[in-house]
Amino acid sequence: MNAEIIAVGSELLLGQIANTNAKFISSQLSELGINVYYHTVVGDNPKRLVQAIEIAEKRADLIIFSGGLGPTKDDLTKETIAKHLGRGMKEDLEAMNMIEAFFAKRNRPMTANNRKQALVIEGSEVLANENGMAPGMFIPLENSIVILLPGPPKELEPMFQFEAKPKLAKLVSDGGLIVSHVLRFYGIGEAELEDRVQHIIDQQTNPTIAPLAGDGEVTLRITAKAASEEEAWSLITPTRTELLEIVGDYLYGVNDDSLSSKLVNMLIENDLKISAAESLTAGLFQSELAAIQGVSQVLQGGMVTYTEEMKINQLGVPKEIIDQYSVVSAECAASMAINIKEKFNADIGVSLTGAAGPGKHADQPVGTVWIGIAFRDDEPLTFELNLQGMRNTNRLRSVKTAIYRLIQLLSEKGYRKI
Amino acid sequence: MNAEIIAVGSELLLGQIANTNAKFISSQLSELGINVYYHTVVGDNPKRLVQAIEIAEKRADLIIFSGGLGPTKDDLTKETIAKHLGRGMKEDLEAMNMIEAFFAKRNRPMTANNRKQALVIEGSEVLANENGMAPGMFIPLENSIVILLPGPPKELEPMFQFEAKPKLAKLVSDGGLIVSHVLRFYGIGEAELEDRVQHIIDQQTNPTIAPLAGDGEVTLRITAKAASEEEAWSLITPTRTELLEIVGDYLYGVNDDSLSSKLVNMLIENDLKISAAESLTAGLFQSELAAIQGVSQVLQGGMVTYTEEMKINQLGVPKEIIDQYSVVSAECAASMAINIKEKFNADIGVSLTGAAGPGKHADQPVGTVWIGIAFRDDEPLTFELNLQGMRNTNRLRSVKTAIYRLIQLLSEKGYRKI
Repeated sequence: MNAEIIAVGSELLLGQIANTNAKFISSQLSELGINVYYHTVVGDNPKRLVQAIEIAEKRADLIIFSGGLGPTKDDLTKETIAKHLGRGMKEDLEAMNMIEAFFAKRNRPMTANNRKQALVIEGSEVLANENGMAPGMFIPLENSIVILLPGPPKELEPMFQFEAKPKLAKLVSDGGLIVSHVLRFYGIGEAELEDRVQHIIDQQTNPTIAPLAGDGEVTLRITAKAASEEEAWSLITPTRTELLEIVGDYLYGVNDDSLSSKLVNMLIENDLKISAAESLTAGLFQSELAAIQGVSQVLQGGMVTYTEEMKINQLGVPKEIIDQYSVVSAECAASMAINIKEKFNADIGVSLTGAAGPGKHADQPVGTVWIGIAFRDDEPLTFELNLQGMRNTNRLRSVKTAIYRLIQLLSEKGYRKI
Repeated sequence: MNAEIIAVGSELLLGQIANTNAKFISSQLSELGINVYYHTVVGDNPKRLVQAIEIAEKRADLIIFSGGLGPTKDDLTKETIAKHLGRGMKEDLEAMNMIEAFFAKRNRPMTANNRKQALVIEGSEVLANENGMAPGMFIPLENSIVILLPGPPKELEPMFQFEAKPKLAKLVSDGGLIVSHVLRFYGIGEAELEDRVQHIIDQQTNPTIAPLAGDGEVTLRITAKAASEEEAWSLITPTRTELLEIVGDYLYGVNDDSLSSKLVNMLIENDLKISAAESLTAGLFQSELAAIQGVSQVLQGGMVTYTEEMKINQLGVPKEIIDQYSVVSAECAASMAINIKEKFNADIGVSLTGAAGPGKHADQPVGTVWIGIAFRDDEPLTFELNLQGMRNTNRLRSVKTAIYRLIQLLSEKGYRKI
């Protein structure tokens, strides 16, 4: 099955937003082993939309549309496709009920154009919209499939994942199913990881293994096609084991884990309080943890000591350490980590100090960063980074590395295996 | 002139990255008044690329390609287009020199495939690449124009802006030029702003006025077409004045300003030191300021006091204030702001405390946030927000509002007019 994704919306052609829907749908289709050969973006213009459809019909047997299902006069995807297919429209009762309930709940009168949103193309299987009013459509044609999805990502993503994808999975797996398992790595480059597992990737057909890199992280997605979930896992598990024997040291999580969600959840499960003293990252470490729900159970807070004076006066780093080793040093990082742990009454104190760029800091070249970790009464650990990026990339990479080191340390201490 | 943007790269079709290049180029073309009717994405496949070119030739007179100019065997945009146009390739001396210098500097041997990057299509005007090795191309054809740009955004964006855009601007302005001026607003919704200035937008043809909204900010771009820069400004200035008479209260900056760059630069110019005490934002305010170069001249640092205990013990907020008013209150915000200013020896102390969500905090509904600002010995100011977003949207919006309030306060104090 070869797919084309057609996004409809003038805001895309004006450069007001990027086509993240096509990215999302493509990555989902790639999990199913469905090839995407083209993305097209076209404006809110029926004539040009029809031309795009005619081109897509010649080169794809799965056409997925996003956008143009709303209540305004610009929203014409549904009407244009219905006309092109020579089909009528009918009101979907379920969608109509949801729309009426939406307005009733808010005590607002429902205008006629909202009624339009409940219309679906005849012969389509309706895809429920849990986060908006416009239903999606799955239309099986003689030799192809057409899918219509709403434009807002918060509506499109769950609708695709939970309504459309299972239908497609059923088609491509010939009655079986597809199971994916993602391994998440940090601290190893994409090229090195791929190099080390390439022989496994090459010899696999079911499951397949797909590497993906971004923002310092690398993932391997293992995807199995099988008659049952059990059978799929019996294919995935030995491959997973084989991969982890080689690069398991760099594994930090699986599936939807992120570095910060993984760390925060380990801290919560083991009731470990954390605090941080930040220099170059200036609060970014704490803010990244605070993005995760439930963090208030474990994050005590901490300090941003951007100046040398504040490191001494507020955090209590001995002036002698700074004079002897500078603020960008293992010694300063260790002192910051111990002191913040004590002051903020935490089990773990973390520190980040370094030269983010563009200029040198404390005579250290740009990208030199020291991370300190003080765990209870243990001797503090320190790590040096030599980063190559621009100022804000270096700041973010420092935070990610600190989080990764903490996950590693807690795993080594047996707090919870991944 | 009608444009189509063709992005070449299988990583886009696999959903590994979004097509942000098309967004960038589209917004740039929209500034020039050039209509974009289609975006296309095609993989690293010569046959399908040629088909995409043939379709684009029928519907666009400006075709811009991104991606596929690199040294690997997958990079075939240039070769495919040259063959399609029936043109040869020649080595560009300047590009070759840059490539050789790159390898010499790093003491690495230059492999043959890198030489390939210096080849350009015959008859093209070469677009210099300041951030990479592959040069771009501007190819005037009989009735149309073809532009080739490299894929990495950090190479493509400056190349388009400084090399390709001026050539296009010259063509569309009939020997004249195009000048754009962007007004940046905060604290007013897109719908309200548009509503208030719609009559001005409607009556304008030169300059034109284009509104754009995102992330709580709204911008108005004023674009004039004229024979000289002076004449363009004589068109822009009265329109700018007319707009600012209506919505000038919400203006925070112009052109490339961001809220944080604007604030940091105002602080630097007036030598004002700043510190912050953060609860729900957990360091995000300080981290946003620290993203701006030069901030170390004015950012002293501050605290993240995520728990009530730390607000009392570390920041010195009186327990009575918290008991009487709760941690989500004007009184707590004022005390936090004053104390952090004193502790961190700053001119300005800022505080953020509130309920980010998803649960209530201190019995306050999600989205209730208090911002405190203590300026030297002035009576502290406090502001209440009632935000409607999800946890992390609320956190970011709180930070942006605090920054906006600071810019407003400093402007009112006469520190620098915008």
